[in-house]
Amino acid sequence: MTTTGMSESAAPALPKCPSAAEIAASVRAGRESAAAACAAALRRIAETEAAVHAWHHLDASQAQEQARALDEAGPSGALAGVPVAVKDIIDTADQPTENGTPLDTGRQPDADATVVCRLRAAGALILGKTVTTELACGAANATRNPHAFSRTPGGSSSGSAATVAAGGVPLALGTQTAGSVVRPAAFCGVWGMKPSFGTIPRTGITRLSRTLDHVGVLAGSAQDVALGIDALSGDDGVDVASAGRAPTRLAAALAMPLGAPRLAFIRQPAWEEVEPSAAAVYEAAAADLGAEPLVLGSSFDDAAAVHLGSMRREVAHALAPWYERGATNLSDTIRAHIEGGREIDADAYLALLDSADAMRRAFEHAMRPYDAALTPSAPGAAPEGLAFTGNRKQTMLWTMLGVPAVNVPVLSVDGLPLGLQVVGRFGADATTLRAAAWCAGRLQEARL
Amino acid sequence: MTTTGMSESAAPALPKCPSAAEIAASVRAGRESAAAACAAALRRIAETEAAVHAWHHLDASQAQEQARALDEAGPSGALAGVPVAVKDIIDTADQPTENGTPLDTGRQPDADATVVCRLRAAGALILGKTVTTELACGAANATRNPHAFSRTPGGSSSGSAATVAAGGVPLALGTQTAGSVVRPAAFCGVWGMKPSFGTIPRTGITRLSRTLDHVGVLAGSAQDVALGIDALSGDDGVDVASAGRAPTRLAAALAMPLGAPRLAFIRQPAWEEVEPSAAAVYEAAAADLGAEPLVLGSSFDDAAAVHLGSMRREVAHALAPWYERGATNLSDTIRAHIEGGREIDADAYLALLDSADAMRRAFEHAMRPYDAALTPSAPGAAPEGLAFTGNRKQTMLWTMLGVPAVNVPVLSVDGLPLGLQVVGRFGADATTLRAAAWCAGRLQEARL
Repeated sequence: MTTTGMSESAAPALPKCPSAAEIAASVRAGRESAAAACAAALRRIAETEAAVHAWHHLDASQAQEQARALDEAGPSGALAGVPVAVKDIIDTADQPTENGTPLDTGRQPDADATVVCRLRAAGALILGKTVTTELACGAANATRNPHAFSRTPGGSSSGSAATVAAGGVPLALGTQTAGSVVRPAAFCGVWGMKPSFGTIPRTGITRLSRTLDHVGVLAGSAQDVALGIDALSGDDGVDVASAGRAPTRLAAALAMPLGAPRLAFIRQPAWEEVEPSAAAVYEAAAADLGAEPLVLGSSFDDAAAVHLGSMRREVAHALAPWYERGATNLSDTIRAHIEGGREIDADAYLALLDSADAMRRAFEHAMRPYDAALTPSAPGAAPEGLAFTGNRKQTMLWTMLGVPAVNVPVLSVDGLPLGLQVVGRFGADATTLRAAAWCAGRLQEARL
Repeated sequence: MTTTGMSESAAPALPKCPSAAEIAASVRAGRESAAAACAAALRRIAETEAAVHAWHHLDASQAQEQARALDEAGPSGALAGVPVAVKDIIDTADQPTENGTPLDTGRQPDADATVVCRLRAAGALILGKTVTTELACGAANATRNPHAFSRTPGGSSSGSAATVAAGGVPLALGTQTAGSVVRPAAFCGVWGMKPSFGTIPRTGITRLSRTLDHVGVLAGSAQDVALGIDALSGDDGVDVASAGRAPTRLAAALAMPLGAPRLAFIRQPAWEEVEPSAAAVYEAAAADLGAEPLVLGSSFDDAAAVHLGSMRREVAHALAPWYERGATNLSDTIRAHIEGGREIDADAYLALLDSADAMRRAFEHAMRPYDAALTPSAPGAAPEGLAFTGNRKQTMLWTMLGVPAVNVPVLSVDGLPLGLQVVGRFGADATTLRAAAWCAGRLQEARL
């Protein structure tokens, strides 16, 4: 990792990106061509990419050709002409997908992932592929935080969060197995949401964990989060986790008037690891929002161990082909996941699944009086340095529970974005996003 | 197992039981008391129980007291006053639950299983507990086939099928991990259905397998199957498999006019094991019903191995407490499941789950042109003898797929019931039961 010549303390001026909703409306109305929207995105990206390194694959001439083809077909759909960034563990038939590891250099999938097919069906332009950490659970790659180049953007959806934060594109795809959507969204100061487990099919995405992998989106607004998830969600007939799941209608839910939700404030798990300055901001926000303290019972004490154990056992299975092909080309982090996972026998693994099930239902009971809960997205702002993408402890539990989780990007600490996480009950994606949008509006009012 | 003095070839005259729908309507209208319905059931059971041995626990005075309490409260609900039989692996707070094993002699649960709570809420009378095979996956217990006492009733829901067949009660609860609802229903000549995986919560039922255990019902008519499942289904907030599942509305679906469904005829898996006389009956029925042959692809070749492996691995985990308490008190069958399961390591287990997932989605694709498919419930009629409850190969696949499966009791071979199995797509419980009811009507017409 080399440093750029830019001052590490510089707060760079970032270009402003129109929202996906605005671009799509302009393109559908014929006020702007997809080609023009594409060219504008490429110009914005060029302003910061040398410093931010958000993109792993971005072929400007291919992107422009895609956009011209869209224009010829007559762009339509909820994301008509919207340039979208796709994390590089998500297969694209027209662009390489290299999983952030040298073991997959040159890998060219035959087919698009379900989510990529659906973006195209919604009229979007697959602008390029964004940097992921190694196999979405290992070493950091080249991306820097657009708000402070010396700091991590978070991971594993590093490039997707960074390009949205840097004004490159309004919408990007990410994935989350521990905290890989919410944490980079928090560090980069953008909206991020992973909906309930199974809401978005994972077909054509490099699998880490059958029970923990989620697809999510990163975007500049709650409305764009909603447009993105609405386009991506619903049973695809292949991923069993999506079986029977209907498409979401989040944009319609957000368009209705937002009443004050019943909010809980959960200082778990690992509140003791939240930095004091961040904790004070969270406490003040919870007070502004009228959130009631909620303490989850002792059955949640093992949550981190249950998440880590089940993840490692499933990662060891899913990534065995990479390990066999070249363990020495894998980072120590990935090797630790795989080798640690192999130590977990089938009975221990089944016991972990039982514990996770019990916590899922206990959380539902605990949340009955509430529409959503507030909790930190991370222990503080993005830490200094690029090698460590940040502490996952504030996100692992919600991933394991499979519940909707949203990063609301309105708080800050020491001049850097501080992520507020809003989580909800399983399946209550619309309620959770509505609560998150209400919180954002209320906190912005409170600051004026 | 001792033989009775009765002739093995006797075709006994069995009492006729009114349907659950009839009993509930009479009780709700005040034409019959729950106490009278209870007394009538006890009389019918007394006619055959000495030969059939369907009941493991049946305390007539306690049942009558329950019925009197119902009458005092003013019976209401879809199953008002209906005496129901409950398989003895399903917890009842007022009656022992002994799991068909001497290791659980005298076991008295503190609480009712979800399904028992729901039966009581629907106005039903929990008449008693029916014989299960050892821990629902091991040695046969005392029950005999009411149509031929020398023959097995099938298992593991042996007593539930037998008492419905013998006219004791109109409705009984069973469970199925391989074929334990459909096969005994077939052998005993009654309706049986296990709806889609997760439709009925399993809370309070002795677990064998987290991914394969289903609850189902045995009944004298399709309408009673529908009433039973409607009363039992929907998320209970505890069993994660039921999360987000709405209650079924099967009775309403059956009450609509039944049009001819688009039917497939699947001679898999293990058609070669179907007895020639039975195969001829199935072929003729499929022709009468206008079913088109459907061949599932080679990905299904491993279905039996995938089912058995994943079941054994999960059984080894779930039944470990019994094994630790007294392996020598377990049958060879159970020990083989547990010891075989322990040989399956976590990677092999995860690979089995992957294979099962792939078959689930492949089946959905294959079934797109059809409403339901016909296939044998068993390789033939109930075999002679009581020790072996019958070949599970005709049911294991559908259990593993988690799809709805119904035994339609209208065919016969050599004077014994021959079960026709109607299976459908995951979640299509109403479509599947409607198709099964249409098949029954059509085949009965064709025979007149």
